Amino acid sequence: MLDLAIIGGGPAGLTAGLYATRGGLKSVTMFEKGVPGGQIMNSSEIENYPGVPEVMSGMDLMAKWPEQCQRFGLKHEMITVTQVTRNSETGIFTIHKEDGTTEDAISVIVGTGSTPKRAGFKGENEFFGKGVSTCATCDGFFYKDKEVTVIGGGDTALEEAVYLAGICSKVYLVHRRDTFRAAPSTVERAKNTPNIEFIVNSTPDEVFGEDFAGVQGIKIKTPEGIRQLDTTGVFIFVGNDVNNGVLKQDDGSFLCDITEWGEVVVNLKMETSIHGLYATGDMRLDAPKQVVVAAGDGSTAAIGAISYVMENK
Amino acid sequence: MLDLAIIGGGPAGLTAGLYATRGGLKSVTMFEKGVPGGQIMNSSEIENYPGVPEVMSGMDLMAKWPEQCQRFGLKHEMITVTQVTRNSETGIFTIHKEDGTTEDAISVIVGTGSTPKRAGFKGENEFFGKGVSTCATCDGFFYKDKEVTVIGGGDTALEEAVYLAGICSKVYLVHRRDTFRAAPSTVERAKNTPNIEFIVNSTPDEVFGEDFAGVQGIKIKTPEGIRQLDTTGVFIFVGNDVNNGVLKQDDGSFLCDITEWGEVVVNLKMETSIHGLYATGDMRLDAPKQVVVAAGDGSTAAIGAISYVMENK
Repeated sequence: MLDLAIIGGGPAGLTAGLYATRGGLKSVTMFEKGVPGGQIMNSSEIENYPGVPEVMSGMDLMAKWPEQCQRFGLKHEMITVTQVTRNSETGIFTIHKEDGTTEDAISVIVGTGSTPKRAGFKGENEFFGKGVSTCATCDGFFYKDKEVTVIGGGDTALEEAVYLAGICSKVYLVHRRDTFRAAPSTVERAKNTPNIEFIVNSTPDEVFGEDFAGVQGIKIKTPEGIRQLDTTGVFIFVGNDVNNGVLKQDDGSFLCDITEWGEVVVNLKMETSIHGLYATGDMRLDAPKQVVVAAGDGSTAAIGAISYVMENK
Repeated sequence: MLDLAIIGGGPAGLTAGLYATRGGLKSVTMFEKGVPGGQIMNSSEIENYPGVPEVMSGMDLMAKWPEQCQRFGLKHEMITVTQVTRNSETGIFTIHKEDGTTEDAISVIVGTGSTPKRAGFKGENEFFGKGVSTCATCDGFFYKDKEVTVIGGGDTALEEAVYLAGICSKVYLVHRRDTFRAAPSTVERAKNTPNIEFIVNSTPDEVFGEDFAGVQGIKIKTPEGIRQLDTTGVFIFVGNDVNNGVLKQDDGSFLCDITEWGEVVVNLKMETSIHGLYATGDMRLDAPKQVVVAAGDGSTAAIGAISYVMENK
């Protein structure tokens, strides 16, 4: 039986593994099908991880983490976990793997992230990380005093448009309808921001550019025909899938409390509604979706898990 | 008027400044009397800040932070803030400085840390960071399979003794009484841990060692006379002062809700009970007191503050 199972190998899972093993837990396995590092590995530039002043790719930023985090005995199993269940009598968790095998664990830390939805237009995937972004906090600054395009009409889209308007010279907000799902106060705030131009009843047609230079502009289908916006940054906020699938039980319920948006409810200790189960990083409630915050969550959860395991072993 | 005032220049304050300025706030000042970096600067070894695999001193770890965090316009004012007040009609905060001047700010992030109390015995200050520690999560691993001494009898002391017992070969728990302030279940758990030896009705007399090698042992005053423990690690858990003084108002109340221990109550967004006021790092409720968590708090608070300032400017 494992002391601790960590599901997901992003900044949260890696840091949880570092703290848990360095803190004395003997058998800790991090389950991650791919190369550890998480979603940030797809990012071409990061400069806001404190302590690493060089501007570098997400892949370069994360390159040193696995060695450091595995130095104290963290095991990495390269497999996808399909489900986490819990024996309600013993409180023991069972990790179900895609090859049909299982493993028991006293405590579990989940950090499987979330996946921003794509809008589904030409060039979107090709230029992702090269001008197409789903994170204003991460990438907005790279377009300081430049024009950018935002796609979407929900709360996040309008909030992030206002955020970007504070950095960029102009924000084009492209929305497929002329009404907004966002809260009226948020819509009002965006409309009162002078450097946001609304382009409604419109959808992105194609983002274009060059392989090395990245995005050079985007073509928008408007009621008046195709309109070309020569913005080198395109931000897409059309929803977010929380990767909470491993918490889904056979009856369709979730192992612990989640919000209506699928985020796992946690407190400041990253404890879920189930004792011994912790959630970290982009999948948890109110996640700012930043590497340093996810890493902090992993540390917090591991410190709690060590204490839980020592109490329940 | 400042967009944002940041009180304290540790990992939380620096990261908040990085995110706030990079996120578009125009006038952001971090008030920190000393060299930025925080309490970790007193630490001789750190190896659990993810992404920095080299074992280095706290001072070396923090050396790169100020330049990175000030790159986007964060201003550093080297002065002590004595008090933060708020105009209840306008919601504007006023920063009171020790030279008698004041500055107004739309939003405030406080990250003034907490100070572990010292027990007050000979050699304690001299060997602090060279074998004398107040953080088991930080320094316990450096005594893996070695013997350590813990001083204290409260919840933290006994919890940390159990934590250290999972890493170290033996833990001597020195307590000045034979009864414990800790919760009965915590005392029970410590007593049931085979490699914890209780030394009660006893107080530390002197920690000794050599300048370069650090601590070599500690002398304990016991009812049977002086007992010498040859442990190279001495952990002191005799209480913690939360540095919440800047939040104290003239009538003795606090600007926002605090716990009975003086920690600032926050939610997952690092929001206090007062809109526009955020608390971060070691001073906030349930703080794990780790650099990476404090930095994460700073990021979280800054993202909230940007939105608050843009709404209220």
